[in-house]
Amino acid sequence: MVQAIGYAAPAADKELEYFEFERREPTAHDVEIDIAFCGVCHSDLHQARNEWGGTVFPCVPGHEIVGKVTRVGDKVTKFKVGDTVGVGCMVDSCGHCHSCHEGHEQYCDSGLVGTYNGPDKHSGGVTYGGYSNRITVTEGFVLKVSDKLDLAGVAPLLCAGITTYSPLRHWGVTKGTKVGVVGLGGLGHMAVKLAAAMGAEVVLFTTSASKVDDAKCLGAQHVVISKDPEAMAAWQNQLDFILNTVAAPHDLDAFLSLLRLDGTMCLVGIPAEPHPSPSAYNLVAKRRSLAGSLIGGIAETQEMLDFCAEHGITSDIELIAMDDINEAYERMLKGDVKYRFVIDLATLKQR
Amino acid sequence: MVQAIGYAAPAADKELEYFEFERREPTAHDVEIDIAFCGVCHSDLHQARNEWGGTVFPCVPGHEIVGKVTRVGDKVTKFKVGDTVGVGCMVDSCGHCHSCHEGHEQYCDSGLVGTYNGPDKHSGGVTYGGYSNRITVTEGFVLKVSDKLDLAGVAPLLCAGITTYSPLRHWGVTKGTKVGVVGLGGLGHMAVKLAAAMGAEVVLFTTSASKVDDAKCLGAQHVVISKDPEAMAAWQNQLDFILNTVAAPHDLDAFLSLLRLDGTMCLVGIPAEPHPSPSAYNLVAKRRSLAGSLIGGIAETQEMLDFCAEHGITSDIELIAMDDINEAYERMLKGDVKYRFVIDLATLKQR
Repeated sequence: MVQAIGYAAPAADKELEYFEFERREPTAHDVEIDIAFCGVCHSDLHQARNEWGGTVFPCVPGHEIVGKVTRVGDKVTKFKVGDTVGVGCMVDSCGHCHSCHEGHEQYCDSGLVGTYNGPDKHSGGVTYGGYSNRITVTEGFVLKVSDKLDLAGVAPLLCAGITTYSPLRHWGVTKGTKVGVVGLGGLGHMAVKLAAAMGAEVVLFTTSASKVDDAKCLGAQHVVISKDPEAMAAWQNQLDFILNTVAAPHDLDAFLSLLRLDGTMCLVGIPAEPHPSPSAYNLVAKRRSLAGSLIGGIAETQEMLDFCAEHGITSDIELIAMDDINEAYERMLKGDVKYRFVIDLATLKQR
Repeated sequence: MVQAIGYAAPAADKELEYFEFERREPTAHDVEIDIAFCGVCHSDLHQARNEWGGTVFPCVPGHEIVGKVTRVGDKVTKFKVGDTVGVGCMVDSCGHCHSCHEGHEQYCDSGLVGTYNGPDKHSGGVTYGGYSNRITVTEGFVLKVSDKLDLAGVAPLLCAGITTYSPLRHWGVTKGTKVGVVGLGGLGHMAVKLAAAMGAEVVLFTTSASKVDDAKCLGAQHVVISKDPEAMAAWQNQLDFILNTVAAPHDLDAFLSLLRLDGTMCLVGIPAEPHPSPSAYNLVAKRRSLAGSLIGGIAETQEMLDFCAEHGITSDIELIAMDDINEAYERMLKGDVKYRFVIDLATLKQR
């Protein structure tokens, strides 16, 4: 075993703290990675505080990982020592169900193995995430990362990036598509950048007038204050696709009614309490769909990273030290971050 | 003007009664039809009782019309006197919006003109439906009906048939598709027949054990009592598409969870009170969609009628006299009909 250090939540009601643990020695198909940066996702907080239930403590969160390869197993073919690589929300899946065969490992029939708090096939315990100095991951779940981009800004692409890229691609967003993006947070700001880079006409919906200028800088052609009924009415039946990144319960009908015939609104957040029930009429009247999407497959994540390298896209981030994680969680709860905290793991030292 | 007789609701809280009114003389593009049969749709009752609001009284319901052409305007090319024809839920639309151009008149941007209680372009008042001896309709909204089929059983195809056929086709149901149908009423029994004729493997979901044999006779390969959690669990993640015909508020999640990756559940009913809010998790976890669909376009309705003629499909009906309409409404509310009442207009006499 290999000694590792990190930050873990010792219990649901405790702050994250320094934690020592072990990682496996790389097996034949494994890649060992020195972690340089790890993004801070809202899911990390949900899991650390056991807000979804099922958290095994101590819990080391983090699934937006970028680093350098330090060792590879005998049978690893895609990576060599020194390569810059990434790891996202999954580190394994069954590998033999229909979804896995189709490259949709995130929809694995047996359930994906999460990068943290997942059922570790090697240890028999749970997986530990990227708030850590190193990680060992099977080759098939490691991504190549271009050195052209700022690596700290790449980290959030591994979750916020792929979670928005996958539905935009799946629902055929391309040049001229009229795309609505609801919410300008970690996911929303990536959705705006990615949809704009795909050539879409992007309409950003926000409740905050203070975000209008930012949204336009990020690539939105139009910004609509969703609390303004007149501004909303002007977009009725206009949009081809809406990516709704807001996980807090809200009125879905206000956005469904903006879709044209056969339009889809895709949810990527899961609220703790259900959204108010959407109106069947709004679906029936224009053959609209309300859908959902979960991260993306490994091949698609690589495609997204390559797309970002080609278009010079990274996340807008605020770099923090490992010690700042608890304060960052509090600020994240207030929406006080533009638009993603990323931990600089160089600040994590053995004690 | 032409004298017409029918049955109308004089007010929301009154029973339907004998009513005399006028139809227009056929214009150059009009077809005048002697109505032989008219199906009784649940929408008729909603409108007659003003349960959706906006009903103009007196209201002559009926939008599942079959009859014979008695006169045609100078410019009518598709129909001649003596032809057997049908009229469904629409008698007009704007004709120039994108939806109309694409043959989706039901999604007309200006709103379709309903066969009853619609804004009549000719009279300036409202349209009167098929509980009547005759009707005059613009050629573009009249359908050809094969004489091969029992005409009374054809009438419900004009609403119940197309409302189920259109989403089955739109979502690509074909040989081998695993299709769930929720509810075995007027719409559900047509959905089972049509999906089976398309070659699908049909699973019928009902709360009534008494409907199992019927469902199998209609073409369902499997019947699941939806109140039985074990029976439902066996179908988790199995279905490609679900057509949900139940308009009463119910738990959508119980059915959404039966869809495989990328599956869609389509609603064709609009409940008076919203369904309990579906779980975002159920959508996100398998990239599922919850959609809606409204009747079908004119070209697609003709396609459906031709498909039914080819496959020998009609609705299972109970033929009633015009005078029986109020009793039929009461029985329809109790679900006491297999599976559609159809009025024999030969029983409607001048008084």
